[in-house]
Amino acid sequence: MIEPFILRKIAKQALKEDLAYGDITTDTLFPHPIPAIGHIRAKGPLVVAGMDICLEVFKLLDACLEIKRGVKEGQEAKPGETIVTITADGHALLKGERSALNFLQRLCGIATLTRKFVEAVKAVSEHVCIMDTRKTTPGLRALEKEAVRLGGGLSHRHHLGGDLLFIKDNHIALAGGVTAALTLARKRLSPTTKIEVEVTSLAEVGEAIAGRAEIILLDNMSQATMREAVVLIRTEAPTVRIEASGGVCLENVTDIAATGVDMISIGRLTHSAPASDLSMDISTRW
Amino acid sequence: MIEPFILRKIAKQALKEDLAYGDITTDTLFPHPIPAIGHIRAKGPLVVAGMDICLEVFKLLDACLEIKRGVKEGQEAKPGETIVTITADGHALLKGERSALNFLQRLCGIATLTRKFVEAVKAVSEHVCIMDTRKTTPGLRALEKEAVRLGGGLSHRHHLGGDLLFIKDNHIALAGGVTAALTLARKRLSPTTKIEVEVTSLAEVGEAIAGRAEIILLDNMSQATMREAVVLIRTEAPTVRIEASGGVCLENVTDIAATGVDMISIGRLTHSAPASDLSMDISTRW
Amino acid sequence: MIEPFILRKIAKQALKEDLAYGDITTDTLFPHPIPAIGHIRAKGPLVVAGMDICLEVFKLLDACLEIKRGVKEGQEAKPGETIVTITADGHALLKGERSALNFLQRLCGIATLTRKFVEAVKAVSEHVCIMDTRKTTPGLRALEKEAVRLGGGLSHRHHLGGDLLFIKDNHIALAGGVTAALTLARKRLSPTTKIEVEVTSLAEVGEAIAGRAEIILLDNMSQATMREAVVLIRTEAPTVRIEASGGVCLENVTDIAATGVDMISIGRLTHSAPASDLSMDISTRW
Amino acid sequence: MIEPFILRKIAKQALKEDLAYGDITTDTLFPHPIPAIGHIRAKGPLVVAGMDICLEVFKLLDACLEIKRGVKEGQEAKPGETIVTITADGHALLKGERSALNFLQRLCGIATLTRKFVEAVKAVSEHVCIMDTRKTTPGLRALEKEAVRLGGGLSHRHHLGGDLLFIKDNHIALAGGVTAALTLARKRLSPTTKIEVEVTSLAEVGEAIAGRAEIILLDNMSQATMREAVVLIRTEAPTVRIEASGGVCLENVTDIAATGVDMISIGRLTHSAPASDLSMDISTRW
Amino acid sequence: MIEPFILRKIAKQALKEDLAYGDITTDTLFPHPIPAIGHIRAKGPLVVAGMDICLEVFKLLDACLEIKRGVKEGQEAKPGETIVTITADGHALLKGERSALNFLQRLCGIATLTRKFVEAVKAVSEHVCIMDTRKTTPGLRALEKEAVRLGGGLSHRHHLGGDLLFIKDNHIALAGGVTAALTLARKRLSPTTKIEVEVTSLAEVGEAIAGRAEIILLDNMSQATMREAVVLIRTEAPTVRIEASGGVCLENVTDIAATGVDMISIGRLTHSAPASDLSMDISTRW
Amino acid sequence: MIEPFILRKIAKQALKEDLAYGDITTDTLFPHPIPAIGHIRAKGPLVVAGMDICLEVFKLLDACLEIKRGVKEGQEAKPGETIVTITADGHALLKGERSALNFLQRLCGIATLTRKFVEAVKAVSEHVCIMDTRKTTPGLRALEKEAVRLGGGLSHRHHLGGDLLFIKDNHIALAGGVTAALTLARKRLSPTTKIEVEVTSLAEVGEAIAGRAEIILLDNMSQATMREAVVLIRTEAPTVRIEASGGVCLENVTDIAATGVDMISIGRLTHSAPASDLSMDISTRW
Repeated sequence: MIEPFILRKIAKQALKEDLAYGDITTDTLFPHPIPAIGHIRAKGPLVVAGMDICLEVFKLLDACLEIKRGVKEGQEAKPGETIVTITADGHALLKGERSALNFLQRLCGIATLTRKFVEAVKAVSEHVCIMDTRKTTPGLRALEKEAVRLGGGLSHRHHLGGDLLFIKDNHIALAGGVTAALTLARKRLSPTTKIEVEVTSLAEVGEAIAGRAEIILLDNMSQATMREAVVLIRTEAPTVRIEASGGVCLENVTDIAATGVDMISIGRLTHSAPASDLSMDISTRW
Repeated sequence: MIEPFILRKIAKQALKEDLAYGDITTDTLFPHPIPAIGHIRAKGPLVVAGMDICLEVFKLLDACLEIKRGVKEGQEAKPGETIVTITADGHALLKGERSALNFLQRLCGIATLTRKFVEAVKAVSEHVCIMDTRKTTPGLRALEKEAVRLGGGLSHRHHLGGDLLFIKDNHIALAGGVTAALTLARKRLSPTTKIEVEVTSLAEVGEAIAGRAEIILLDNMSQATMREAVVLIRTEAPTVRIEASGGVCLENVTDIAATGVDMISIGRLTHSAPASDLSMDISTRW
Repeated sequence: MIEPFILRKIAKQALKEDLAYGDITTDTLFPHPIPAIGHIRAKGPLVVAGMDICLEVFKLLDACLEIKRGVKEGQEAKPGETIVTITADGHALLKGERSALNFLQRLCGIATLTRKFVEAVKAVSEHVCIMDTRKTTPGLRALEKEAVRLGGGLSHRHHLGGDLLFIKDNHIALAGGVTAALTLARKRLSPTTKIEVEVTSLAEVGEAIAGRAEIILLDNMSQATMREAVVLIRTEAPTVRIEASGGVCLENVTDIAATGVDMISIGRLTHSAPASDLSMDISTRW
Repeated sequence: MIEPFILRKIAKQALKEDLAYGDITTDTLFPHPIPAIGHIRAKGPLVVAGMDICLEVFKLLDACLEIKRGVKEGQEAKPGETIVTITADGHALLKGERSALNFLQRLCGIATLTRKFVEAVKAVSEHVCIMDTRKTTPGLRALEKEAVRLGGGLSHRHHLGGDLLFIKDNHIALAGGVTAALTLARKRLSPTTKIEVEVTSLAEVGEAIAGRAEIILLDNMSQATMREAVVLIRTEAPTVRIEASGGVCLENVTDIAATGVDMISIGRLTHSAPASDLSMDISTRW
Repeated sequence: MIEPFILRKIAKQALKEDLAYGDITTDTLFPHPIPAIGHIRAKGPLVVAGMDICLEVFKLLDACLEIKRGVKEGQEAKPGETIVTITADGHALLKGERSALNFLQRLCGIATLTRKFVEAVKAVSEHVCIMDTRKTTPGLRALEKEAVRLGGGLSHRHHLGGDLLFIKDNHIALAGGVTAALTLARKRLSPTTKIEVEVTSLAEVGEAIAGRAEIILLDNMSQATMREAVVLIRTEAPTVRIEASGGVCLENVTDIAATGVDMISIGRLTHSAPASDLSMDISTRW
Repeated sequence: MIEPFILRKIAKQALKEDLAYGDITTDTLFPHPIPAIGHIRAKGPLVVAGMDICLEVFKLLDACLEIKRGVKEGQEAKPGETIVTITADGHALLKGERSALNFLQRLCGIATLTRKFVEAVKAVSEHVCIMDTRKTTPGLRALEKEAVRLGGGLSHRHHLGGDLLFIKDNHIALAGGVTAALTLARKRLSPTTKIEVEVTSLAEVGEAIAGRAEIILLDNMSQATMREAVVLIRTEAPTVRIEASGGVCLENVTDIAATGVDMISIGRLTHSAPASDLSMDISTRW
C-alpha cells in the first residue's frame, strides 16, 4: 500500500505536466462550474489496479467529489464494465481525465499481464511465485510493483539498498567470478541481510552453493540446464530458494515453472505490458 | 531538446528510487574505486533515443566519466551493436546501470515503434505526419515526445494550456454539441490560438466546418466515412488541417493514411511501445 | 484559471520567505488564539485580481477561516471599498497580511493598468486586442497573465515551448534574415503549430508575407510605417493577423490601435504596473 | 550577497516557467550549436543590479560560457552602454534571454529608483538612511533587498521571525493600544531582540518612549507632527532611533528627511519601481 | 510557534525516510483497517515538547484521527504518565510510531535538559537567561529552538542573516583584532541591526566597549576573569548586555550565573541532550 | 556510502536554514574575497565520521576549495589532531563553519559511541554484532547509519518497506499474540523476505521457533532469561539468528554479549550519542 501523502505528490507531478498553464479549452468553454458525472469503463478485459492514484488526481482538482467504485482492485473487469463513477465538478473531470487515465491504463496493463503469467503457471505448480524486477518506469516504481501484487505477483527487492545483497553478472565480472564475489560479500555483513547470486552455468551453481548463497538466480539457462540446476541445489542445499529469469514470456513460463524453481522474475511485467484500454465518459447532472 | 538542468532533475529522481539507501551489493563487494568500462549494446534492432537522460544518470554518479557514442540518436542500431561506451568508476556503472537502462529501453522502444509507423505510411503518402498524443507516462512526457520526434513523428500539443484550444468528445457532451462548443470557444480567444475539434460523424464534420475550426480530428471513423470527410473538408474548407485517430495500429495505418488526412495521432506510440532489448556489460580497465 | 493545488504551492513559497522562523511579534504578544476579523480595502480605484492567491495565503494559516468577497475579480473597486472580509484567528491575519497583500497589490496593479489600455483603444477599434508578453516576474507568470485577462487583455504565448513558433529579432539575426528564418522554420513542423515573425521594416513585411507567416509582429515601427504595413498585409495576405509592439504606453496606444492592427502587446502591463494601494484592517470579534 | 546555490535554484525556477517544454523556435531553426555573442545594453540611464542572477540563468544553459562585465553592480550605466557581454552557444543566449532580462530589468529598476531617493535626501542630511520594507515580490525578496542595497539603501528586517520585534498598527489594534502592546512584548523576550513600534500620533510617541521602544516608526504623520515627534524623542529618549514611513515619494522625501529622522522606509522601492529599459543583441561569432 | 504547513513538510520528509516503500510488516499482517488506540507515555521524568510535529506525523497517515492531550507542552510529565492518546486506524499508529517518537524523544530531551539549566541558575539570579545556539541538528533548527523555549530558555539568533551582526573568533582572526572587526562592521549598517562581539580576554573586553558593541560575549573565560569583565562592562558601558559561553554544563552553570552575566548560551542544549525515554502502546478498540 | 548528489541535497538544506538571508556579519566585514585556510581539529578523542557531508557544505560555498584530509573516516583522532584542512575563500569557511560542524560533531559522536560498544563486547565474543536501530534523527538516517558502520557497527533495516518483515510488540498486540502474527505474516510473502519477531518471554520464544521466524529479537529480557532463550533457540532452531535489545548501555553490554546472542541493537547509538568536541580555526593565507 502506498500512503496517500505519497500518492498525492505523484499525482501533483503528473497534473503539473498537463495543467501548469491551465486548461485553455475547458476554462474558455465553461466559465462556471458544471455539475457532472464521469464513468471510467473497461473497453477490454482487464485486472483493476492503480485506482488510488487515479482518484487522487481528481481529488486534487475537486476536493468535494464523490466516488463509487465498481470493480475492486485486483479483480477482473469485463469489457464495458464501469470501474468507477465520479460525481464532481465537470472542470475537475475534464482537466484530470488524461492524467488519471494515463496512470490507470498503465497500472491495469501491468496487473492484467501479471495475472496471465500467474494463471499460466498454476497448472504446473502450486507454489511457484511470479516476481517483479527493478525494470520499472522511473518515478513510478512503487505504483508498478503494487500493480504486480494486485495481479497476483510478488515483489522482488525495491531498490539497491535493502536487506538483500544481490550479486549480478556485472558484479561477478568485476569481482572475478562467483566464488570471489561471494567471498567479498561475506566479509562484513549484517546477519539480517540475505545473499542472492546470479548464475549462468552449472559450474557457477556449484560455486553459489559452496559460497552459501541463500537464493540462487538461474539466468538465461536452457530448461534442461535449469532442471539439472534445480536437482543439484535441492540435493546439496535444500534451504536455498531458486529463482529463474531471462527472456520469460507467456509461451515459455509454464515450462520454466515445471523445472521446479521457486520464483520466476519477469521484466516485461513492468517494462512492456501493453496499456489497458479504458475510457471515461462525462455527462452533466441536471 | 530537453535542457540538461531538467534532465538532471529527472535523473536524480530515478536514482533516488533505486539508490536512496545506497547499493549494499556494490559497496560491500568493492570498498575501493574500480577503473571500469561499460558497453551498452542493442540486443535487437532499435532506433536510438533517450541517450541524454541515460548518460545524465551516470554523470550524477561519476562526474569525470568519459563517453564515446556509437550510434547517434534517431539512427538505427543493429543487434549487437554498441550504442555507447562509458569509461568510469565501476561503482558508477554498477549503481546507475538499471536506472539508465530503464530510461533507455523505454525511449528506444518508443522511437522504434514510431519509426515503424512512419515507414508504413511513406508508401502511400509523402506528407502525412505521424503524431504523438498526451497518452504518455506521468513524469516522462517531455522525454517520450522527444523519442517520438527521433523516431520520425511530430509533436501534438504538450499540455492543456498551450495555444491550441482542442475540443474533445467530453467537451462536446457537456457543451451540447459541436456547434455549441465552437460558439463557446469563439467568445473570447486570443488571435494567436488555433482551434481544433474532434468529430465522429459527417454531420459533425459539417458543424466543425461551419464553426470555422482550423483543425478537424476524425475520431474512430470507418475508413469509408473518413474518406468522405476528407473530401468534404477539402472542398468546403481547404485551409483546414485534418487529423485521424482511434485504434490506429501498424495493420491499419497505411489505409488510414490513404484516406488523405494530414496527420495520424497514435496513443500506442507512447503508452504501449514494448521496451527495446538492451544490455550493459561492465569490465575492468587494467 | 490556476488550479488550487498550484496556488497553494506559490502561497507556501511566499509564506516561507516571511514566516520560516515564525513571527516573533505576533507569537510574543498573543500566546493564545484571538477571534478576529480583517477587511481588505482599496485605498485608490483599482480592478480586482489575485484574490485566489491572496486567500490561499490565509487558508494555509487558518484552515477554518470564513471569507466574504466584496468586489468580484475583474470588477472595479472604488477607494475605500471593502474587497474581501476574512473572519479568522488573529494570528493567521497578522502573519499572512504582508504576503497576501504583496500578491494582491501587484496583481490588482496589473489588472488596473490593463483596463486603462483596454478602455483607451475602445474608442478607435471594436476588435483590437490588448495582449500580454513574457516580460513577467520570474515565478509569477501564470498569476500575472491571469491578472491581464481580468483587466480585459488576452494572453500571448505562455512559454517558449508551445504551439506557436515565434521568430524574433535575435533569431533573425542568427538565421540571416526573415526569409532565411522562415525557411528554416518550415522544414519540419507540426501542422498544429502557428508561425509568427517579428519585422521592423516594410521590406521585412514583404518577406514575412512571402514566407507565409500566419502572424506578423510590427515591432517599434513609426505609426506611418505601421499603417503602410497594415495595408500591405491586408491586401496581400488577408488571413494574416497583425500584432504591434514596442514602447507602447497610454499616450500612444490609441494611435497604434487606429493603424488597424489586430493586437497590441505591451510589456509594461506586467513589468512596470505600479502596485495598487490596498490596506488590511484587523479587529477583534467579541 | 546571495549564495550561488540559492541563486541557481531561483534561476532554475524561472527557466522552468519558460523552458519546461523546450524552445520550439530555437530548436526548430537551429538544430546545431551556433557560436554566438550577446551584449546586454542599457537603453536608458540605470543603476546596475541583479547581474549574478541574470548570469546564473545563462550558466544553466551553457556551462562553458564566457562573461565580460562592463558596468559593475551598484554603478550607473549610461544609455547605450554595454553592461555585460556573454560569449556562448547561441541556443543558451536565445533561450535564456527573456528570463535573464526579466530579472535584470526589475532589479536594475529597484536599484535605480533607490539611488534617486538616496541622492534626494543627501542635500538635507548626511546620515538619514533610505530603507526597504517587506513589500517585495513573493519569491524574490532576497534579490530585491540586495538591489536596494546596491542602490544605496539599507535593509530593514527580512522576515517576521528575526531579532527585531516590530509592533505594527494591527498588533496595536488587537493588543488594545501602544502601551498594552509594549507591555505584552516585554514579558519574555531574549536580550538580543530589539523592539520597534509604529505610532501615528504624539500621544502614541509618548507611550512608545515610556514603554522603552528602541526604534519608533512615525507612520503617515504630517511633517509638522513628525518634527514635533523627533524633538520629543531626541529629548526624552536620545538613544532611540526614529523611522518614518507612509506615502513617501520623490516629491516629499527631502522634506521628510529634513524633519531629522534617522531612517525613511519606502515600499515603492520594491513594489512599484518601473522596470529598467534593457536589451540584448545576439550575433554570430565566425 | 511553527506554522502547521511547515510542520507538515518536515513530517512528510521524516515519513518518506521510513515509509517510501511502504510498511511490509503492517500491510502484510493487517490487510484491513483496525480501529485502534495508542498511548504515548513517559518512561522517565521529562518536559514535554515536540507534540505538534509528533501529531502531524500521525495526521498524515490518518486524517480522521482523534487526539486527547494529557500533559501540555512545557509541562513536566512523571514516569508512566500518558502524554497523549490517539484514536486512529491501527495502520497509521503502527506506521507512524517510530517517526513520531524520533521527533518526540529528541525534543522532549532538549526541553528537559534546558529546564535543568533554568532551574539551576534560578538559585543565584532572577534575571539570567539560558540561551540556545546555532549548534542544532541540520533540518530541525526551528523545532529544537522551540523546544528550548518550552524548557524555559530563550532563542539566540536563528541564522546568519538576521538583525544581529555577531562577530566571532574567526571573524576577529581574519579582520585582525576586535577593534578592527568592529570598525569594519560599523561602516555601513542598518540602524535596526545590533552588534555583538565575542571576546576572550579583558583586553578584548576593553576593545569591545570602545568599539560600542551592544552585546559582549565572554567566551571560555575563567570565572574570575568573567567576574572582572562583568564589573568592567557594567562600569564603562552599563547598557551593554553580557553573554557567557564555552563548556557550560550543569556543574558550572550556577557559578557562571553568579558572575552577573545576563545570558548563558549552551550548545549542549541542542547538540547533546540525551533522548527522553518514551513509549507508545497500541491496542485495538472493540 | 551515500552518493554525492544525495549529500549535496542534505547539505543545501542545512545551509538554507543558516544562510537563506545571507551572512550579515561576514558580508559586512569582508566585502572582498579573503584567501584563507581552515583547520578542523578534534578537541577530545573521537572516531571520524561525516567528513563527506561536512566537506559538501564547504563545496557548495566555494567550488574551488582544496582539501587535505588528516585522519581518515573510521579512524580515531587524538585531542588536538587536525582532521581536515581546507584552503578556500574565507567567506566560504566562515559561512559554512557552523553547518559543517553541526553535521560533523553529531556523526563523529555516533561513531565514537559505537566504537566504545564494539570494543566492549570484543572481550567476550568474537562474533557478536553491534547494530543500529531506526531511532535516528529525522532527515539524517542514512548519515547516522553510515556513522554507526564507521564506528564498527552494522546496519539493521533502513526503513519499514525492505526485505525484512519485522514483527514488533505493537504488531503482536494487534494480531493477538506471536503465533497469530507469524501466521498472518506467512500468508503471502515473497521468498526473498526474511521474518524477524520480537519476543519478551520464553513462552514467546517457543512460539517464534514454532512459527519459523528466521531472526528472534529478545527484547528487554533479564540476562538470565536471555541465556535460557539462547540455549532454547540454539537447540531447537540452530539456523535462527538471535538479537537482543532494550536498555543496552556500556555498563551492561558485555554481559548481554556473554549470553551468546548474535546481535545487540542499541537505540542510544543514534538518539543519545553526545556530540564530539570539534573546532575550526580559520586564518588568512598571505
